[in-house]
Amino acid sequence: MSSPATARTDFFARHEGLLRAAAEAIATRGFHSAYPESPSKSVYGEEAPEAGERAFRDLLDRPFALPGHPGEAGAVGGEVSPYGPRLGVTYPRLDPREAVATAKAAGRAWRRTSPDTRAGVAAEILARLNAASFQMAHAVHHTTGQPFVMAFQAGGANAQDRGLEAVAYAWTAQRQAPAAATWAKPTRKGEPLTLEKTFTPVGRGVSLLIACNTFPTWNGYPGLFASLVTGNPVVVKPHPAAVLPLALSVRVARDVLAEAGFDPNTVLLAAEAPEDRVAAALATDPDVRIIDFTGSTGFGDWLEQNARQAAVHTEKAGLNTVVLDSTADYKGLLRNLAFSLSLYSGQMCTTPQNLYVPREGLATDQGVKTPEVFAADLADALGKLLGDPQRAAGTLGALTGEAVRERVDKARALGGTQFGGEPLTHPEYPEAVLRTPLVAVLDADRDAETYRTEWFGPISFVIATDSTARAVELLRETIAAHGALTASVYSTDEEVLEAAREAALDAGVHLAENFTGQVFVNQTAAFSDYHGSQANPAASATLSDWAFVTGRFAVLQSRRPAVATQEATGA
Amino acid sequence: MSSPATARTDFFARHEGLLRAAAEAIATRGFHSAYPESPSKSVYGEEAPEAGERAFRDLLDRPFALPGHPGEAGAVGGEVSPYGPRLGVTYPRLDPREAVATAKAAGRAWRRTSPDTRAGVAAEILARLNAASFQMAHAVHHTTGQPFVMAFQAGGANAQDRGLEAVAYAWTAQRQAPAAATWAKPTRKGEPLTLEKTFTPVGRGVSLLIACNTFPTWNGYPGLFASLVTGNPVVVKPHPAAVLPLALSVRVARDVLAEAGFDPNTVLLAAEAPEDRVAAALATDPDVRIIDFTGSTGFGDWLEQNARQAAVHTEKAGLNTVVLDSTADYKGLLRNLAFSLSLYSGQMCTTPQNLYVPREGLATDQGVKTPEVFAADLADALGKLLGDPQRAAGTLGALTGEAVRERVDKARALGGTQFGGEPLTHPEYPEAVLRTPLVAVLDADRDAETYRTEWFGPISFVIATDSTARAVELLRETIAAHGALTASVYSTDEEVLEAAREAALDAGVHLAENFTGQVFVNQTAAFSDYHGSQANPAASATLSDWAFVTGRFAVLQSRRPAVATQEATGA
Repeated sequence: MSSPATARTDFFARHEGLLRAAAEAIATRGFHSAYPESPSKSVYGEEAPEAGERAFRDLLDRPFALPGHPGEAGAVGGEVSPYGPRLGVTYPRLDPREAVATAKAAGRAWRRTSPDTRAGVAAEILARLNAASFQMAHAVHHTTGQPFVMAFQAGGANAQDRGLEAVAYAWTAQRQAPAAATWAKPTRKGEPLTLEKTFTPVGRGVSLLIACNTFPTWNGYPGLFASLVTGNPVVVKPHPAAVLPLALSVRVARDVLAEAGFDPNTVLLAAEAPEDRVAAALATDPDVRIIDFTGSTGFGDWLEQNARQAAVHTEKAGLNTVVLDSTADYKGLLRNLAFSLSLYSGQMCTTPQNLYVPREGLATDQGVKTPEVFAADLADALGKLLGDPQRAAGTLGALTGEAVRERVDKARALGGTQFGGEPLTHPEYPEAVLRTPLVAVLDADRDAETYRTEWFGPISFVIATDSTARAVELLRETIAAHGALTASVYSTDEEVLEAAREAALDAGVHLAENFTGQVFVNQTAAFSDYHGSQANPAASATLSDWAFVTGRFAVLQSRRPAVATQEATGA
Repeated sequence: MSSPATARTDFFARHEGLLRAAAEAIATRGFHSAYPESPSKSVYGEEAPEAGERAFRDLLDRPFALPGHPGEAGAVGGEVSPYGPRLGVTYPRLDPREAVATAKAAGRAWRRTSPDTRAGVAAEILARLNAASFQMAHAVHHTTGQPFVMAFQAGGANAQDRGLEAVAYAWTAQRQAPAAATWAKPTRKGEPLTLEKTFTPVGRGVSLLIACNTFPTWNGYPGLFASLVTGNPVVVKPHPAAVLPLALSVRVARDVLAEAGFDPNTVLLAAEAPEDRVAAALATDPDVRIIDFTGSTGFGDWLEQNARQAAVHTEKAGLNTVVLDSTADYKGLLRNLAFSLSLYSGQMCTTPQNLYVPREGLATDQGVKTPEVFAADLADALGKLLGDPQRAAGTLGALTGEAVRERVDKARALGGTQFGGEPLTHPEYPEAVLRTPLVAVLDADRDAETYRTEWFGPISFVIATDSTARAVELLRETIAAHGALTASVYSTDEEVLEAAREAALDAGVHLAENFTGQVFVNQTAAFSDYHGSQANPAASATLSDWAFVTGRFAVLQSRRPAVATQEATGA
């Protein structure tokens, strides 16, 4: 079947090498990156930082330009930077039913083209997003509150790598069935029965991306690109507080689609005012057949229960856990954990929350540390890391909003032994709200209710347990029940490590062992590390694996006699 | 991690060649079969037919032996052959909660072993099922009512091929992530950050197979083997009228598991009396995480709505469709369709029901045939095929029960021009209920309500339409709305074929074009043809594709510094 939309530019030919390398990387899972994460002039060009900042400033205080996009232009928008300024950008408002119908209609030509063509278009979108990384970094910085360098990395290059990883899975998965085959069944009479068969991957329908406030691109790109490359049009519904990064992404996607000869409405932006609450209407539209969601457990569970017509991929909340048994590098352990707890003020779905320490203490190269001593040492390490205001701001970023600040206050009100949770002033943005990470000492038996709830933000608990065995059991039990995106263990004892691995397999969580250096449990690397496991309640999706892409398309076959006359006389 | 259960026999080594060939076949999708479908002595041995029949007779009128199986032995059983005799076999009754808990406990060791080991065990189970094909054929024949040769093929060899196909997908899917990888991230300072990572496929939890009356093994094996090989214990819940074929399968599986050093309770039989209705209780058990179901749309929809904790794979009902536009081989067309409608009395989920013919007629090499003339010619072809009582019995088999017979009577009461639907006497079993296929002429506009409902059994409609274009539109619309497992088109016009292909892609159904020879639309071949598409309401699963297996397991990772001391000094 020929495609009615002939691609004007052969983006597949341009990016085939990139795609093949990415496909190789997901099979071998070593280090791989297509987009440099260093925000340096030597990589991105002498002009890039200033040009990117200028391009960002040019977006402010005006309607966001989306040529040809349906809806009421400039109708919604109220983003306020966690660093203070109102962005003043407005976006089209699009009726949910119209969004889905428009995407569905636009998606017909997209469905008919080949996986190669779709992967080429996706790779070109990513190339242009990469070229716009500095502009994107400002947009992410001023919507999520991420520190700037992190915004460049997690919101730019690393998000692009996660996107490319999803492209590689989606592209490869569709090539696992051949485009055509000859089937020749031997018969006793001699002449085989012969059929010619064709196999066509076909997208499932309209795909909906419901993105989050904290990582709009990093968590959003995998679903967006997996759906696009498997032949589905995508409606992008950003969080009302973080529209700009995805509006930029949608614009780039639409530009490339149009240049390739496709309807730009194959990708649509469904921005909303906070009171519009269009996500539920979009999610239950019968034509929405795929949903990717990052956000609260409440709405994620609601989607899983109510959007029955769709394949629903969620990433929600959980109880990220650290089992502390023993270490040969106490200093490295403290430094590593202090950074993990501080990065973006603990507003990562991967930040450790529950740190279990045996009542009798953690055995270290500097002696045995009781839970209270360990908490104090961790607070010291945090103090060293965050002592310099510039460095503190560059690590903590800003709190996303009132809810997180209030949660810190609530944690402070728990009382008992605790450290941190104190206001800091951002050296550049006095309006930004910052808190040092709060570390509270709890008891495994007495405080179960407290630590079996997620406290999203810069809040962690050092939990005194009867033994490491009990801590491992708590890891298993709390994560099986409430989910987690990360788990860690520190031990010099191979048996403890083995027990932790077994518990992690039972609980369905990925494990980090003895991280004392410059790799952190809350960071996962595209092409090598899985993010989420679909094996515990925190997520029904993994970024990315085969299950993340195979449900987004069907392979339909058509078969016919190879030689009609031979068939006709076969009986 | 070492496995606590060391396999006593290396079944993987024994079957590695078979597995590799199967894995190659699913990638190339040409003809492939591991188990010969001919019930001949030259293939299966001089003694096989008689020994198989004896082995079947030895099962009758006594409790079915399942050593070590939990539950109240001999408590349920009431199978009656559609050919007359009561089987008199009884099975253990197992409380649903106990079934799931027992399987879950038994599955722990199974989860810990490797995909290779699990695939080897599965291949050995299939080898033993193949050796028991004659016994199985009698069991399928006398529970489903399939004619004997079909029972041997569809219930034996072809079902084993479908099972092996699922094994190949499940085994290959788990090998798509490496078992281990070294991740070395370059740093500006020189020394890379290096982690060692392991990747472990882990089953999702207890898997439940809810099997059907008509194809207990063919429709049941894919889910059973896909779940087993991906590391899940399986509870097999047969239809109360067709327990024996799956009881035999479960016994073989348990024998092989035990010989391989695993707990035989990794596979359990949950037989029930018709009034027990344990399926719903099993399906909503929180520990049941995978469900494979074949059966009615009503219960399939209920499962999709209510078994929210599980990945649900369903195969339900639909409106299998044939668009008749033109043919260069009218005789072949009639002969082919007559056989498709007759085979197993239309009690296949793939039997054509709605045959659209333009009012002005179907253009053929023997002139133009109006709907009424075509229906009469089809009735003639059916008469020729079924004129000899022995041949009729060997094609039609027996009706499964009252519901199908009543449906034929209801169709006869529709009135208008119609043929067939008449009683036949089985030459060997006078108690068997047989009906010739009923062909009724309907009008596309006037009789929409009638043909937009599934009439499971030997009932088909020749539907007069305004044009072929309208017929193609009806294919698209009725299948998108109500689902279908098969669609066919007959045309000598390349444009019509192209339009039918496009409509089939829109509707999400596989297409057969111009089948006039010895291949029939209601038959699909393992390794080459997909059965079901997960793209229309008739099924949420495809036998088999990657989506059928990837949701049955997660790959969990563990990562650790490659050299702890280097990591420790990295900061």
